[in-house]
Amino acid sequence: MANPEGNVMKIDINVDMGESFGRYILGDDEALMPWVSSANVATGFHAGDPLVMERTIAWAKKYQVAVGAHVGLPDRQGFGRRQMDISPAELRSDILYQLGAIQAFLKIYNMKLQHIKPHGILYRMVGEQERYIDPFLDTIEEYDRDLLIMLHTGCEALKRAEKRGLKTAPEILIDLGYDANGNWILERVKKARSPEEVAERALRAVCEQKIDTVDGRMIDVEGVTVCIHGDAPNAAAVVRAVHQKFQEAGVRIQALSDD
Amino acid sequence: MANPEGNVMKIDINVDMGESFGRYILGDDEALMPWVSSANVATGFHAGDPLVMERTIAWAKKYQVAVGAHVGLPDRQGFGRRQMDISPAELRSDILYQLGAIQAFLKIYNMKLQHIKPHGILYRMVGEQERYIDPFLDTIEEYDRDLLIMLHTGCEALKRAEKRGLKTAPEILIDLGYDANGNWILERVKKARSPEEVAERALRAVCEQKIDTVDGRMIDVEGVTVCIHGDAPNAAAVVRAVHQKFQEAGVRIQALSDD
Amino acid sequence: MANPEGNVMKIDINVDMGESFGRYILGDDEALMPWVSSANVATGFHAGDPLVMERTIAWAKKYQVAVGAHVGLPDRQGFGRRQMDISPAELRSDILYQLGAIQAFLKIYNMKLQHIKPHGILYRMVGEQERYIDPFLDTIEEYDRDLLIMLHTGCEALKRAEKRGLKTAPEILIDLGYDANGNWILERVKKARSPEEVAERALRAVCEQKIDTVDGRMIDVEGVTVCIHGDAPNAAAVVRAVHQKFQEAGVRIQALSDD
Amino acid sequence: MANPEGNVMKIDINVDMGESFGRYILGDDEALMPWVSSANVATGFHAGDPLVMERTIAWAKKYQVAVGAHVGLPDRQGFGRRQMDISPAELRSDILYQLGAIQAFLKIYNMKLQHIKPHGILYRMVGEQERYIDPFLDTIEEYDRDLLIMLHTGCEALKRAEKRGLKTAPEILIDLGYDANGNWILERVKKARSPEEVAERALRAVCEQKIDTVDGRMIDVEGVTVCIHGDAPNAAAVVRAVHQKFQEAGVRIQALSDD
Repeated sequence: MANPEGNVMKIDINVDMGESFGRYILGDDEALMPWVSSANVATGFHAGDPLVMERTIAWAKKYQVAVGAHVGLPDRQGFGRRQMDISPAELRSDILYQLGAIQAFLKIYNMKLQHIKPHGILYRMVGEQERYIDPFLDTIEEYDRDLLIMLHTGCEALKRAEKRGLKTAPEILIDLGYDANGNWILERVKKARSPEEVAERALRAVCEQKIDTVDGRMIDVEGVTVCIHGDAPNAAAVVRAVHQKFQEAGVRIQALSDD
Repeated sequence: MANPEGNVMKIDINVDMGESFGRYILGDDEALMPWVSSANVATGFHAGDPLVMERTIAWAKKYQVAVGAHVGLPDRQGFGRRQMDISPAELRSDILYQLGAIQAFLKIYNMKLQHIKPHGILYRMVGEQERYIDPFLDTIEEYDRDLLIMLHTGCEALKRAEKRGLKTAPEILIDLGYDANGNWILERVKKARSPEEVAERALRAVCEQKIDTVDGRMIDVEGVTVCIHGDAPNAAAVVRAVHQKFQEAGVRIQALSDD
Repeated sequence: MANPEGNVMKIDINVDMGESFGRYILGDDEALMPWVSSANVATGFHAGDPLVMERTIAWAKKYQVAVGAHVGLPDRQGFGRRQMDISPAELRSDILYQLGAIQAFLKIYNMKLQHIKPHGILYRMVGEQERYIDPFLDTIEEYDRDLLIMLHTGCEALKRAEKRGLKTAPEILIDLGYDANGNWILERVKKARSPEEVAERALRAVCEQKIDTVDGRMIDVEGVTVCIHGDAPNAAAVVRAVHQKFQEAGVRIQALSDD
Repeated sequence: MANPEGNVMKIDINVDMGESFGRYILGDDEALMPWVSSANVATGFHAGDPLVMERTIAWAKKYQVAVGAHVGLPDRQGFGRRQMDISPAELRSDILYQLGAIQAFLKIYNMKLQHIKPHGILYRMVGEQERYIDPFLDTIEEYDRDLLIMLHTGCEALKRAEKRGLKTAPEILIDLGYDANGNWILERVKKARSPEEVAERALRAVCEQKIDTVDGRMIDVEGVTVCIHGDAPNAAAVVRAVHQKFQEAGVRIQALSDD
């Protein structure tokens, strides 16, 4: 499928991976790899451990999937989902530590770090909370101006990142509900969506820049990547359905760093 | 002072730093910085945390001290001193993770990682235990062939590292006792040594390649760096005394990476 | 079924439970509860967390299952399976801490702590390693002389416990292989055993005091409880099969503390 | 000294203890023990570890000091000072776990748990934040109605505790500043107070129920215990000065549980 300018349309599919920890297995990462173009790899604070990181990156290499650092709060028990009142200086050093850690494994596999994506509540903290937005952007800017910042399309941090000339990767959370203002909704009890339903939402979001809301409207949405949550019971089926839907429609699935 | 070939003699002084953790302060790192040429910076497993790492590296930058990664076992409660039966694969990924983490801070400060030194019981595990020596060297070789490996002079790992063509930095533990075979002795109750005594030992070790043993002999010893333990109550006085003794004798104190 | 003295035979079935941690789910504890008489509840060092402990004990209350403290090494990443060279004093205080922690939840549910069972490598350390056996027994003796010590039948620690007059619960690891000397074998790749096969082994072990070995012999074995590992994929089916086999044979399944 | 009813006045002096962790030493607990009547012993989440807990309780036994559980958030790196958005159920189970853990050591030393005092930001969370006050009180009420709850005099949690008929130990933070409304002030840079000054404040607070504020007024204050922070550099001198001041004035220093 081509966009109005006649170019082939393209999209990135990103999924969280590497969230296992020691004996604890979370998600079937290798089963998902063939269907995604970018992997958000947990960096050992909220999830993951060094052995899991290396294994996940080896899979990403094998399946030619681009890798991002899925950085989180230092709270494994809470899976990085409990807001912690860390200082901006702690935010900075925690992020640098995790970015460096994942780079070591990428170096071994001769890969490049494509993007950074904050996990869990940190996604909201650095995306929307005044105390953390600029310290987060300062850190990225100082560490590597070429690193793609993956956050929700339209969030305050992405707006400021663009003003600073940083590289962004606005994403659409294709398997979550949206309200009429374009805000995504964290569902306590996750709404069960069929693979086909998510795939159709994804295609519409990419080709028509539209997404349906929980109150039945259709709103504008725009992103360069769609996120599918890998920890749903039917995650593999959903990711595969989205992948195939894009392929059938002639939308090219490719990582963000590719041309 | 010049060696027999007429060159100015030189030596590196290395000290463990960055071992504080959150509210817990260990050592007065900034007070030691002016007197050392290399800092072994804890990388967050056995000691240190991201904030401490960044602060320590900022000090190293300020005082022009070279930085090494002081990697340890994942056992903060035991300060990396309790042997853990980790697998070689865990050793590898734990080391890579820590190497990467410290590199992120060095990148920010536009510094280079000079060396790797294992901490605590890991020093013995990768230096002397058959199960870990080669996996350790494999990891360094794969990650960065130019990284200096700092271990005790004469240990098995250094011998093999040299055969592999890896870069080594054999060290003398100048404030510990030695037995007649050149093995250093971990003293339960650390022998109190005056700054002057340690300084004289250091000078003799560097200029005459001799060190005294606990049973009163004098044995050969050879190293390119002398280690002083920074957690002794009189650490600052000892480090300063060693530094001044070298200076008075015309031995140039310089980091390992310098020419 | 009655033993030669004409009494109804009875047996305890114990399973490890409460091993989940935060977002990480391990085992389907509630599904197993109806079929077991004793639960070894992880006490938060190698596995489990306070929330999981409370939930597990609530289930134990509901299904009238007796509770033991499944104490482990402070190594969550290694799931308590990596030997750590802790001191006897650390062993003691680590065990006391965990015993106390679980008692708080039992107090809330008006239950009694039935037994202590060490987890993972700690099972071998305190059961067989000279350095730890007596410090372990000293700790139990000082803390609560009435606490049942669950360890492998015939191990050195149980022998000494009996000499001291402590209470013991020798167990048979009914789903593991045995060698000709009665030692259980930790299988790297766990041998797949059908529920029926395990159930028959269990019944023979209890009624005839015999178990088959990996080299095809039949050896004597004696225990008051049979352990089934709850983390096998077919754990629920196995536990149910064992339970039913005992019931059909007229062997009464009851916790150790019951008369 | 006697109060208006003619009884000898009495006061409890409480200090935080047992905050060391592995190799990290914090405070000189044994030096403080002779001068205090109650020790708030860290229970291993924000500070302390099992070995430290046992040692601290052994000292408390030796010096006949009453013991309280100093419970904290599961954030050792932040020393329990960073607010974490834990759920009320997590609050409950985290507190129960810590209460139980300390009880095991007290059992060994044949001592009784006198009180519970939340540490760091948890002091404010359960003392003042609507989300946590009642879940905290519910937990204490269910666990042990006789446990003294030590919190700041006048805080909401103490008011509700009294309405519920729970036992309270309102405290005065004798070495911190107060505002005109009786709120204590957490000083970023701790105001240096001489031992004599703190001692006089303590005596006035106990005998006249008055304390000075940062803006120079004198306000009413009432408590059964005075808290002195043990981590100040001159902590031992301060504690001793307060102790002696009370003794000279004829105020009896005694733990809360004593008659």
